[in-house]
Amino acid sequence: MSVELWMPIVCGIIALAYGAYAGRSVLSSDAGTARMQEIAAAIQEGATAYLNRQYMTIGIVGIVIVVILFLLLGLKVAIGFLIGAVLSGLAGFIGMHVSVRANVRTAQAASKSLKEGLDVSFKAGAVTGLLVVGLALLAVAGYYAYLVSSGVEGRGLIDSLVALSLGASLISIFARLGGGIFTKGADVGADLVGKVEAGIPEDDPRNPAVIADNVGDNVGDCAGMAADLFETYAVTVVATMVLGSIYFAGDTVLMGYPLMIGAVCILTSIIGTFFVKLGSSNNIMGALYKGFLASTILSAFALWPVTDMTIGMDTVFTIGTKEFTGMSLFLCGLVGLVVTGLLIWITEYYTSTEYRPVRSIAAASETGHGTNVIQGLAVSMEATAVPAIIICAGIIVSYNLAALFGIAIAVTTMLALAGMIVALDAYGPVTDNAGGIAEMAEMDEEVRKTTDALDAVGNTTKAVTKGYAIGSAGLGALVLFAAYTEDLAFFIKNASETQFSFFQGVTLDFSLQNPYIVVGLILGGLLPYLFGAMGMMAVGRAAGSVVREVRRQFKEIPGIMEGTGKPDYGRAVDLLTKAAIKEMIIPSLLPLLAPIVVFFVMMFIGGKSAAFATVGAMLLGVIVTGLFVAVSMTAGGGAWDNAKKYIEDGNHGGKGTDAHAAAVTGDTVGDPYKDTAGPAVNPMIKITNIIALLLLAVMAH
Amino acid sequence: MSVELWMPIVCGIIALAYGAYAGRSVLSSDAGTARMQEIAAAIQEGATAYLNRQYMTIGIVGIVIVVILFLLLGLKVAIGFLIGAVLSGLAGFIGMHVSVRANVRTAQAASKSLKEGLDVSFKAGAVTGLLVVGLALLAVAGYYAYLVSSGVEGRGLIDSLVALSLGASLISIFARLGGGIFTKGADVGADLVGKVEAGIPEDDPRNPAVIADNVGDNVGDCAGMAADLFETYAVTVVATMVLGSIYFAGDTVLMGYPLMIGAVCILTSIIGTFFVKLGSSNNIMGALYKGFLASTILSAFALWPVTDMTIGMDTVFTIGTKEFTGMSLFLCGLVGLVVTGLLIWITEYYTSTEYRPVRSIAAASETGHGTNVIQGLAVSMEATAVPAIIICAGIIVSYNLAALFGIAIAVTTMLALAGMIVALDAYGPVTDNAGGIAEMAEMDEEVRKTTDALDAVGNTTKAVTKGYAIGSAGLGALVLFAAYTEDLAFFIKNASETQFSFFQGVTLDFSLQNPYIVVGLILGGLLPYLFGAMGMMAVGRAAGSVVREVRRQFKEIPGIMEGTGKPDYGRAVDLLTKAAIKEMIIPSLLPLLAPIVVFFVMMFIGGKSAAFATVGAMLLGVIVTGLFVAVSMTAGGGAWDNAKKYIEDGNHGGKGTDAHAAAVTGDTVGDPYKDTAGPAVNPMIKITNIIALLLLAVMAH
Repeated sequence: MSVELWMPIVCGIIALAYGAYAGRSVLSSDAGTARMQEIAAAIQEGATAYLNRQYMTIGIVGIVIVVILFLLLGLKVAIGFLIGAVLSGLAGFIGMHVSVRANVRTAQAASKSLKEGLDVSFKAGAVTGLLVVGLALLAVAGYYAYLVSSGVEGRGLIDSLVALSLGASLISIFARLGGGIFTKGADVGADLVGKVEAGIPEDDPRNPAVIADNVGDNVGDCAGMAADLFETYAVTVVATMVLGSIYFAGDTVLMGYPLMIGAVCILTSIIGTFFVKLGSSNNIMGALYKGFLASTILSAFALWPVTDMTIGMDTVFTIGTKEFTGMSLFLCGLVGLVVTGLLIWITEYYTSTEYRPVRSIAAASETGHGTNVIQGLAVSMEATAVPAIIICAGIIVSYNLAALFGIAIAVTTMLALAGMIVALDAYGPVTDNAGGIAEMAEMDEEVRKTTDALDAVGNTTKAVTKGYAIGSAGLGALVLFAAYTEDLAFFIKNASETQFSFFQGVTLDFSLQNPYIVVGLILGGLLPYLFGAMGMMAVGRAAGSVVREVRRQFKEIPGIMEGTGKPDYGRAVDLLTKAAIKEMIIPSLLPLLAPIVVFFVMMFIGGKSAAFATVGAMLLGVIVTGLFVAVSMTAGGGAWDNAKKYIEDGNHGGKGTDAHAAAVTGDTVGDPYKDTAGPAVNPMIKITNIIALLLLAVMAH
Repeated sequence: MSVELWMPIVCGIIALAYGAYAGRSVLSSDAGTARMQEIAAAIQEGATAYLNRQYMTIGIVGIVIVVILFLLLGLKVAIGFLIGAVLSGLAGFIGMHVSVRANVRTAQAASKSLKEGLDVSFKAGAVTGLLVVGLALLAVAGYYAYLVSSGVEGRGLIDSLVALSLGASLISIFARLGGGIFTKGADVGADLVGKVEAGIPEDDPRNPAVIADNVGDNVGDCAGMAADLFETYAVTVVATMVLGSIYFAGDTVLMGYPLMIGAVCILTSIIGTFFVKLGSSNNIMGALYKGFLASTILSAFALWPVTDMTIGMDTVFTIGTKEFTGMSLFLCGLVGLVVTGLLIWITEYYTSTEYRPVRSIAAASETGHGTNVIQGLAVSMEATAVPAIIICAGIIVSYNLAALFGIAIAVTTMLALAGMIVALDAYGPVTDNAGGIAEMAEMDEEVRKTTDALDAVGNTTKAVTKGYAIGSAGLGALVLFAAYTEDLAFFIKNASETQFSFFQGVTLDFSLQNPYIVVGLILGGLLPYLFGAMGMMAVGRAAGSVVREVRRQFKEIPGIMEGTGKPDYGRAVDLLTKAAIKEMIIPSLLPLLAPIVVFFVMMFIGGKSAAFATVGAMLLGVIVTGLFVAVSMTAGGGAWDNAKKYIEDGNHGGKGTDAHAAAVTGDTVGDPYKDTAGPAVNPMIKITNIIALLLLAVMAH
């Protein structure tokens, strides 16, 4: 077995081993008092119950798809789909298993020192992070190695790997959307009826929705984000391999190169985690950034030997008229690292309390709810500008270095850091939960202050991760789009072969002057809008049902407000579980069905050429508006959240003022923006692209 | 002179004659009591002062552009620009002149009967409507006739007409944005400090911003909308003529055909105005729709003889491989009419109190400010779906009938109805003002009820007009985009001629597989977001300055709240005038400079071919996201506004409840959405396209 095959598998196993080590280290730390464990158990129970039900529902959709894939494309494709789906689900499941146990241990550790609190919570995040990249790399590299060793090549190889990414995407869109609806339905509902109506503080144990709120943090930010980045990672690596196989006629070295990048970055991410150490200044963000920077710089250095060893720095490649060397690809990798750093920097600018955007929202709160929301929406729209320019610059530089394959390598490298980035994100819900447990278990005030400090940073890292996720998803989708167009061109060129007879007479016209391209761009552009609207409405409905349930409990359970009656936490969790599962299905089907429906409608209206052109343009349309919708939603939501925190820190009058009430409204609006609709756009973009690729595969079969 | 030259000029003059007749009829009606006239005089004074200052500022920018155009492209182009700018300004100026005099007369007429109130206010709207189409058609047809008769042809003809549309666009973007910032700065500011802080009703004469609010209705909804549709009309007709000249090598009959469509639809619009009659059921909306339907149906019938007479039903034309007849073009005209009807219908669905969207926002208000805004945002995003599909259907059908020229004819016909549609829109601010005057002059309760009934319909017609404006602007921009690509192809083909030497070595690659196209789409997609953000923030700042001024007056002027001290209305108007003029400049320069900057940056990075590709894709990118941003903002804003009205009608507890307070927040958020940022996206899209066209012209000179 050549190095590009065994090395990724070995590194994947190392990632799992690190996960096991870190997970054991988290679980072996002190789990606190009986009261704390009781609360944590309620959260664990709720989260597990939700995840079980969610996977069961996805399972049903999954089985339908497996059967369809088996019938249309054969067993290996169906198995690829299963591997992607199961391992993605597993990453989320184990990550959350650790997360819901780390929360109480973080609370306990925080009662000793900030350093220990950070240690436990970051380690828990790192478990999820390394599991995501480890399992994703193992899935792709392992199945690829198996397929190659069983002699599968050409279309069979590509289709099976694409199906693997569809499996990951399917879990991802459901997990993102279901988790997002659950978490924000709980959050908005609990706030509306608790903070606003009953006047009790956040995380107050008298609020029947308080456990649901904590469960939501885990199923949304931990399991949901894990599935999202598992998917982006797997999809991008697969798309890069597919491009490699198309451009270089199945040259296994170039197909293995993205796997090697992923492999080595697992090692640098693991090393990076050891750099997360609180300095004497107690700067938590600084500690986390140290870890990120260490991983990035080490990756930059490690890319050189990997490139040299795998493909050779001076080897010359050709795509079309473009010649480039291994060195060019190495530089593309660096572009990916730089883009990652820049996206993180700009997202922090838009969502941190230190800078103009968040402060302008806080200032606008003084004149009321309306001006807060106006300013927040304006900031959310403005926040798309610099990321869009960064992404454009990344495209231009890497394209000029090594054509479309250069873009693919840049995104692959960008995503190779996902282990570290997910660690930063998954750390968030753990600290958020820890604060809730400290509050409910009536721990010392100091503990809550420590967890609050950890949580405030978690808000920023969550926003930063989302900026990274959407940026990489947009670029990754471009690679998928390139795979679609190249695939299509290949089929049309070989249309005289029997199996490609469907493509006879099809002409490829992806020019903007073709009106079907314009129609495709508009239809694609529509999808994120419609999908976002559905997600927002679902949160509204879920929150409404929480409000009604909590009101009912306040009325029917005697002594609940005095603390003598015990609220029925389980009912709220159960109700949200049902609501989230029900609400996630229709929107998730949108990207799954849209390319198929548009293809056949357009084939009927304008013939095959028109249909292929429309669907192709649709893929790009969904990327273009999806990028803006997702960035504006996630950045805007983060900014609203921190504007509220900024006021709560004593600015503009502090808590209890009208300005604070206005800021709470903004935060509520931002909730489904940043945690439901916005992030769910990522998997949506990619599913649309993958389905189109598989549509081609079916027609070429 | 052939019929396609003199007939449009004659019809343009007829439109002006109708305007003079209707204007005189409005002005000759009873102007009410001295108190009413005093208030109206204050509004007139403020509106005139604002418009003078706005035109002065635009004048400075305009002179700079005239000089640049003269130096780069010669005298005829500079004169074309001047004609477009001056006549567009004139349409807005006269329209507003009538509007600020019709308001008090409507209030007086409403004290007699609903029928008379409707009569005066609709006639005032019709003056603006017919002036817009009359002056626009006169400008284009008149200058075209002059150029043709002085022997100008080919590029000189095209460039001069394109410059004319730039003149119109320049007025339009400034008027839309400046007027939008003025009106919503006043509206939001007056509401925040009046309704919310001081607890006095809307239009209360004690509020120092009340006159500014009424001034704003006129400068925004009347003058701003007039400039917007003058521009869309002129630009679309010119773009269609340019396409005609490109495809049919200067065939004057086909260049005259769009002018003939405009001409005949002026006549049908005038006839349509006489159908606006209140039936026995007192259904105001029904009366207005009768007028619209009459115009539309008459236009459909009139198109047949016009087509037959001008180009002949059976004449065969060829574009590329596509053959079509005059009949096909007639059918494209019908497509335009159908698209107009469908867009109006769907916008009404999303913004009327009768249907699910508005009612769902009202219902969500019960659980607070946050859920109101969440539901409103969701509705605003959802509202883009059907219009996008309608536009796609329009593109496909008309393209299949007569290639790109078919799309151009469909949009031209759509816009030929602008006279009627602007009448419906300009009717709104008149009735809104009438209500304000009735309130301030302490007229009988019944009068206010009558004006309120008229105003409620005005809200819907304003939203409907905006849906039509953005739909037609999007399609019109597509025609401009087609002109850009065809122009570019022409220059490249003839690059061996000395004057086109700039285009030597340029290859045209508008394929989606070209990464510069992707970059262009993203950069173009960014513009509406950035522009929208700037507009929203400008309103926030303007409203903030109004709040501070009103608070100051409440504090410093003794007896103001008791009605014994007189507020200084002029200061608020003056302050808003300065703020709006200052704030409109930077965002307006964005679309003016973006194509130029992007072109030269890209030429530097990737060479000429990359630069032309990027700018071309940018034009389409700005159309795609612009369409979604504008439709979601205008529909969402209208829905929020009417959700508030629905609650005020007694639903969900009615006025004074928490639900009402939440609905007021939503309405405030919707204000800059629907009246500043959203509608200003229209001219922005087109300016970007026109500048790109002129950039080509400069390089080919």
